[in-house]
Amino acid sequence: MPAAALTPELELVVARAAAAAPAFAATSPTERGRAIVAVADALEGAKASLVEIAARETGLTEARLTGEVTRTAVQLRLFADTLVHGGYLDARIDPADDDFALGVRPDVRRVLIPVGPVINFSASNFPFAFSVLGGDSASILAAGCPLIVKAHSGHPELSDATAEVAATALRAAGMPEGVFQLIHGREAGVAVLQDPRVRAGAFTGSISVGRLLADLAANRPAPIPFFGELGSVNPVFLTAAAIAERAAEIASGYVTSVSGSAGQLCTKPGFAFVPEDSELPAAIAAAAVDLAEHRLLDPRISRSFDERRQAILSAPGVRPIVEGGIRFDDAGHGWATPTIVAVSLEDFRTSREALVEEAFGPLSIVVETPDGTDLAALVPEFFEGNLTGTLHVSEAEGAGSTANAPALRALVEALSQQVGRVLFNGWSTGVAVTPAQQHGGPWPATTNDTSTSVGTAAITRFLRPVAYQNAPAAFLPLALQDANPLGVPQAIAPAGESRSWGSAATA
Amino acid sequence: MPAAALTPELELVVARAAAAAPAFAATSPTERGRAIVAVADALEGAKASLVEIAARETGLTEARLTGEVTRTAVQLRLFADTLVHGGYLDARIDPADDDFALGVRPDVRRVLIPVGPVINFSASNFPFAFSVLGGDSASILAAGCPLIVKAHSGHPELSDATAEVAATALRAAGMPEGVFQLIHGREAGVAVLQDPRVRAGAFTGSISVGRLLADLAANRPAPIPFFGELGSVNPVFLTAAAIAERAAEIASGYVTSVSGSAGQLCTKPGFAFVPEDSELPAAIAAAAVDLAEHRLLDPRISRSFDERRQAILSAPGVRPIVEGGIRFDDAGHGWATPTIVAVSLEDFRTSREALVEEAFGPLSIVVETPDGTDLAALVPEFFEGNLTGTLHVSEAEGAGSTANAPALRALVEALSQQVGRVLFNGWSTGVAVTPAQQHGGPWPATTNDTSTSVGTAAITRFLRPVAYQNAPAAFLPLALQDANPLGVPQAIAPAGESRSWGSAATA
Repeated sequence: MPAAALTPELELVVARAAAAAPAFAATSPTERGRAIVAVADALEGAKASLVEIAARETGLTEARLTGEVTRTAVQLRLFADTLVHGGYLDARIDPADDDFALGVRPDVRRVLIPVGPVINFSASNFPFAFSVLGGDSASILAAGCPLIVKAHSGHPELSDATAEVAATALRAAGMPEGVFQLIHGREAGVAVLQDPRVRAGAFTGSISVGRLLADLAANRPAPIPFFGELGSVNPVFLTAAAIAERAAEIASGYVTSVSGSAGQLCTKPGFAFVPEDSELPAAIAAAAVDLAEHRLLDPRISRSFDERRQAILSAPGVRPIVEGGIRFDDAGHGWATPTIVAVSLEDFRTSREALVEEAFGPLSIVVETPDGTDLAALVPEFFEGNLTGTLHVSEAEGAGSTANAPALRALVEALSQQVGRVLFNGWSTGVAVTPAQQHGGPWPATTNDTSTSVGTAAITRFLRPVAYQNAPAAFLPLALQDANPLGVPQAIAPAGESRSWGSAATA
Repeated sequence: MPAAALTPELELVVARAAAAAPAFAATSPTERGRAIVAVADALEGAKASLVEIAARETGLTEARLTGEVTRTAVQLRLFADTLVHGGYLDARIDPADDDFALGVRPDVRRVLIPVGPVINFSASNFPFAFSVLGGDSASILAAGCPLIVKAHSGHPELSDATAEVAATALRAAGMPEGVFQLIHGREAGVAVLQDPRVRAGAFTGSISVGRLLADLAANRPAPIPFFGELGSVNPVFLTAAAIAERAAEIASGYVTSVSGSAGQLCTKPGFAFVPEDSELPAAIAAAAVDLAEHRLLDPRISRSFDERRQAILSAPGVRPIVEGGIRFDDAGHGWATPTIVAVSLEDFRTSREALVEEAFGPLSIVVETPDGTDLAALVPEFFEGNLTGTLHVSEAEGAGSTANAPALRALVEALSQQVGRVLFNGWSTGVAVTPAQQHGGPWPATTNDTSTSVGTAAITRFLRPVAYQNAPAAFLPLALQDANPLGVPQAIAPAGESRSWGSAATA
């Protein structure tokens, strides 16, 4: 597809971002950190008015949205911490070495620099945490890259209001004009993604749209990296011993995880594998009482959920544990209560086509496995890449000393091959924003499973390395100077070969 | 393009690689390190016979090839060092924290794991260092990924002989069968690259072939990362003061860098910008005496060089400093002596189309710039992404205190925006293999400028992160266990928020 020409308005947006790039890259990590904290403060200051708009536009509850603003502000501050720590720069110094294995080694120093302007396509289901000021935006700004946000059509008014908060705070903090801009409309986003001045893209949304955008990014005359966080069904495996130990607790956690935010989370557990004849289905039915009806995000998602739900319910062998339902109001919004169904492994195989695809909304499928099933083998049989995989084990199984320990190890290994995060005795919804977090698994969960969109490691997506060879101190970036004025971690290579392997001489 | 079906022979190759992946990933870093050192030893043990084949197939000199074997063996040992050090695993541990900004933080631990089978397309111009056992292969094996090498058609016999050395050594070191395999033919390589079991590709070669393969990788049903190291013209900027200080030394270094390996290096300086009326052209002419005739790698490269050379010599305003030439033998091989030409900046602008594209072979262009030229502005005017950019300054200029210091800083900044490595007072050929090395610049120098194909950081290309949440110690990878049996660096996050920004409370 040839790149779409920019409208005059979009040309201004991209030109401003490109013009801002050098000055923004030249701001110190501490300056950018302060500016990001100012944005976090401004966001919390505007919480009441923003949540009011968000509730109206998305149908999410005030409690959920209020918590999400807090999460979003904390996330911004964590990136500010990341900047000041400086480890994200991956500063490496190899001092000159006259006694290197291959003769003289020059002085080589390497640091990560911002890639330039980035476009971020917002998500519908997190109007704060994965939208205008969400994790992608925070990591792009923290990296020192001018940000162009493509607003999600599901909450345009909230997007404008949040953008105003951000732009005002960044301006007041002395950041260059043009480091933060908002655009509306898919065509506008597509056109900006293809502009040669834009150097990377980030996206949270469906597999089909994510793939379309990833292909556009890859097929540009100058290809750019594209970080798409797409769909996931997040399988859960529960052992008989775990269920025997705490069926009610597990059932309650499962129902909460499936129904929270009306199931509209990419980490919702879509499948739970339990031993057949287990007491868990009954415990789930008992836990799923008085579940509130919840509006889905928009009419399109509502219709899609309704169709998937009906297809699943009518697949051979599927029986409801929690019937749930969906009704439509006059505006076309669907109002749903959670649906949980059970199916035997045999029927799951037979009805695979109808069942295995993600159902975005409050629905999950319990698969009952015969005694002796090789659980590790089920992972590649039924699933492609996923964000998460979960295992619930008993206390004794967790110690690794039970008879089924090798089978459990094989299952953990199989999950680690297919997912970005393996959880034990917990639920995949509610992703902690921390340095070790990994939110990104093999395709189609993401377009790029070597990176994460949640956690402070997300900043690395918008940086690239540059090495300086024999550079005089006066021309080195601060992070690479011996005097280390920023106080960042510097990995300094030892002289000579660091290790002897007892092998032949290398001279 | 639909994926080509695998021949029965290739099906076996890919199936063996896929079958070997789990066992290879499960080997300890030390076990893999020992195996890689064994390969290095075996390579050096076979040096005499391999160099004899290489000289015959490539036309490169015995001295160059012997040095290249040493470099290749040292490179393998450096990756073994990298494995034992363990920093490449990027192990991160966020202990559980009841007092986190958002409430309870779970225990999250993250490590990099091998991506699975990888195909590496060998280069023609480094029959050892970027071929069967070159830097890409070394980093793929070190990462723990089964390797399928696509031999370069320019040295098939050497490829087979080197592969035999590698496979034998790996087998003797106890590595699983199928971790190292060689295939021949572009169609075979294309088919393997598109197989769903193959998880990444590496390539060194031309922009056109690299782009073709990158597009195939990106457009697979399940896209995979593709690391192509393509073309580069590596501009050099020389100040009047540097030339006044050491014209003869600079001229000699330049001629050596342009003519070494018959100019068939991706880091060859293709352009040197000098002040007009400088004494450098005369010094270059004086340095370029008795330059040996050298066979180019193959007839195709020879013809292409001949055409580029003639086009450059006949462009308006181009005058030879060192005439050089090329003659063809009966087998169609070209034998070249170096050509160096000069052109004014004005004529360079006029003849831009004819001059700016890479001339792969012993040829370089001196561009003479009028007094007061904004050198920083020339970088984006004439060049896309490059592997390297070089600056030669005087001792006083290097101290950063001369009147032109701001202009020099702007030039360094402009270069850092377009290249992967910025050099001072040296030459870009001869890339040190060290932890801080960066060999990869923006498109079209590489398909992925966030990674490097030279230096120990190259291993990261073939790893992806997996996080473990609340995992019992018995199910954690060794690198993430508190007891740290591998002794790898572990980044342990502090409890609570690490920093106070004086902002509003986050609770």
